[in-house]
Amino acid sequence: MTQPSPAGSNRFEIQARASDSQARSGVLHLHRGDVRTPAFVPLGTKGTVKSLTPREVDQLGFEMILGNTFHLMIQPGADLVADFGGLGEFMRWPGPIITDSGGFQVFSMGHGTVADEVKGRSANGPGRQGRILGIDEEGVRFRSYVDGAEMFMGPETSMEVQAKLGSDIALVFDECTPFHVTREYTAKSTERTHRWLDRCLSWHKANGPEWQMVYGIVQGGVYEDMRRESTAAVAARNPDGIAIGGSLGENKEQMYEVVSWATDELDRVAPDSPRHLLGIGDVDDLIRGVELGIDTFDCAMPTRIGRHGTAVVADPGNRWRLDLTRATARDDSRLLAEGCGCPACSEGFTRAYMHHLIRAKEHTVMRLITLHNLYFIARLMDRLRDAVADNTLPAVAAALRSGANPWDA
Amino acid sequence: MTQPSPAGSNRFEIQARASDSQARSGVLHLHRGDVRTPAFVPLGTKGTVKSLTPREVDQLGFEMILGNTFHLMIQPGADLVADFGGLGEFMRWPGPIITDSGGFQVFSMGHGTVADEVKGRSANGPGRQGRILGIDEEGVRFRSYVDGAEMFMGPETSMEVQAKLGSDIALVFDECTPFHVTREYTAKSTERTHRWLDRCLSWHKANGPEWQMVYGIVQGGVYEDMRRESTAAVAARNPDGIAIGGSLGENKEQMYEVVSWATDELDRVAPDSPRHLLGIGDVDDLIRGVELGIDTFDCAMPTRIGRHGTAVVADPGNRWRLDLTRATARDDSRLLAEGCGCPACSEGFTRAYMHHLIRAKEHTVMRLITLHNLYFIARLMDRLRDAVADNTLPAVAAALRSGANPWDA
Repeated sequence: MTQPSPAGSNRFEIQARASDSQARSGVLHLHRGDVRTPAFVPLGTKGTVKSLTPREVDQLGFEMILGNTFHLMIQPGADLVADFGGLGEFMRWPGPIITDSGGFQVFSMGHGTVADEVKGRSANGPGRQGRILGIDEEGVRFRSYVDGAEMFMGPETSMEVQAKLGSDIALVFDECTPFHVTREYTAKSTERTHRWLDRCLSWHKANGPEWQMVYGIVQGGVYEDMRRESTAAVAARNPDGIAIGGSLGENKEQMYEVVSWATDELDRVAPDSPRHLLGIGDVDDLIRGVELGIDTFDCAMPTRIGRHGTAVVADPGNRWRLDLTRATARDDSRLLAEGCGCPACSEGFTRAYMHHLIRAKEHTVMRLITLHNLYFIARLMDRLRDAVADNTLPAVAAALRSGANPWDA
Repeated sequence: MTQPSPAGSNRFEIQARASDSQARSGVLHLHRGDVRTPAFVPLGTKGTVKSLTPREVDQLGFEMILGNTFHLMIQPGADLVADFGGLGEFMRWPGPIITDSGGFQVFSMGHGTVADEVKGRSANGPGRQGRILGIDEEGVRFRSYVDGAEMFMGPETSMEVQAKLGSDIALVFDECTPFHVTREYTAKSTERTHRWLDRCLSWHKANGPEWQMVYGIVQGGVYEDMRRESTAAVAARNPDGIAIGGSLGENKEQMYEVVSWATDELDRVAPDSPRHLLGIGDVDDLIRGVELGIDTFDCAMPTRIGRHGTAVVADPGNRWRLDLTRATARDDSRLLAEGCGCPACSEGFTRAYMHHLIRAKEHTVMRLITLHNLYFIARLMDRLRDAVADNTLPAVAAALRSGANPWDA
């Protein structure tokens, strides 16, 4: 939090723009290092990319990870992390870090997530221990899911915690509206998110580390006028970058449309600002996102499905997923993917062996599939990035969509 | 199971004997490679050293691991493992493997373990799903803890499964008597164990892979005459090696005495046979075991306590244990051990960070502490082995007992 910004940091350098889509490739020059874009950002939610060490994440080829403000302020607490020199030092990740604001998590306690809605889970059902005590203009009062203590998070709190965590990129505190809310609620919420954006930027200007970039967040639900207005409103504040958040729709087609409203607008009003798409990371979504001009993505998918026994493979007919819990894997002597250079495939582990480890409830397998999944996604982003630079994105995207492995596309 | 034994394999070469104790150092030449002794053998119970890959186990410096006949016959089944070329190929561990016979596990379903007794747990309490249906001269009928299916294990079954698993060293099927049983029960059980030894050796001679070594197991409980008789009886059958099993007493002093009865006897009747001590692995026990002339050890301790948040450190006053779940670790910026070259310490993870990960229930930390603990034990065995070879064991053992790190002793 005290180091000066080195010359040339805190800037986004676009190096190539595709001729037939909104795609671009470049480099984010950040306080703790460079990130080549487009890039996927693995989740290090609570101070670790689940089951991996920072050295392994680096060796997979990732240049930035995401930490979670909400979880880290609850455990171990932002002051303790600051005492250790910030999140990067505390967790021994030497590269750039983006922290999300905590808005998504704190509001999820009340709203439930889109996934909850889709799956019919109750937002206050079993397993959700924290809860919202009140939301007003100041922010949100809630109970800690760890010890039940009353806590508060508002725009200034979020920015202060992110300053203590010492991330390279902080996200402003916003309300992440779920899919089911009305147009009227979305309008009011989006307006409040814009007021909170102003408070975040003010706090950061007065108190934040100068080397920390701050991204505004576009809301507006699934309403085109509101998305476009929100995009323009956020861009008008001139933040260091712009994230696209909130409900993106009930299916992929709607999601792509909602994102395109924002990126169309951004191409006009902030063509050189870096853009982050929050919480999206399916293989087809990453391809489409790059075409829409997104620079960075974060998503739980590759790590979460890995922990549940599903590998990411080049199989569009099965949503790029291979479920190793199924009995068909029991005697399958194949690797997860032919030609794959991930730590699991290169050590020769078969699908049958992984199926056995899943049945035997051995944590080793969560790790093996996590390593494979992140390796696949890292190579996918490498391939897309190179294709933008070479201006061969249409052919590469078509090959990937038809089931080529990233290392063959 | 079909490869011929290479010239010079299947033999134990003692290279040095200490002048002031029973300790010796040497090399076990096995089908799949050499193992320098004295050595600790990490548990790969269900086909993985929990949370690690074989490459990591190798990099820690271990040359042999232990697989579990009982667990592997239940899941994934010995035939499937055989179809994949044996346990080593299935789990991608290229080095030697010792398999235990399953006797300990199958009888534990009925008896409970010594640890259960000490801690007052019921052998048939919650969490134990398998159970014994009957024990007779043929073997043991029991219910699978996976699906409740009725299964059988006797001497021939155990040897057949171990042949299918393709381990370098198979252990004979024995009854592992718990501490609480009477002298009369121990006598009867030990006699049956000797009859089972004959059946195991007969089966193996007729059907087993010639490159697979078979170790007999000494029983006899805590009764000196029975231990000595059992040792002599096992040695008289001339197995490839001898393991010391069963109840070794209610405290460390008694355990050392019980082991010494067996090793004293072995020094007379089988001085050149390799000796394995089953299920023992505390730091002080390893030092004493080496002094008593034990060549190999296996134990769940370093991996199990690691998964529960306890690190092995050079602190004799705390039984060489550091409990990272305790609040004192919360802001402790020290590494687990100064000068430690383990993957966790060399990546710079602090006790505070590990404490945080434990609180946050992140599996990453189970792995980090497992890596540290096994590294500590590997270096301990290296140091003891070198000390036997140099004939400096008394001074090295004294330094280790007074709290030196193995890399400083």
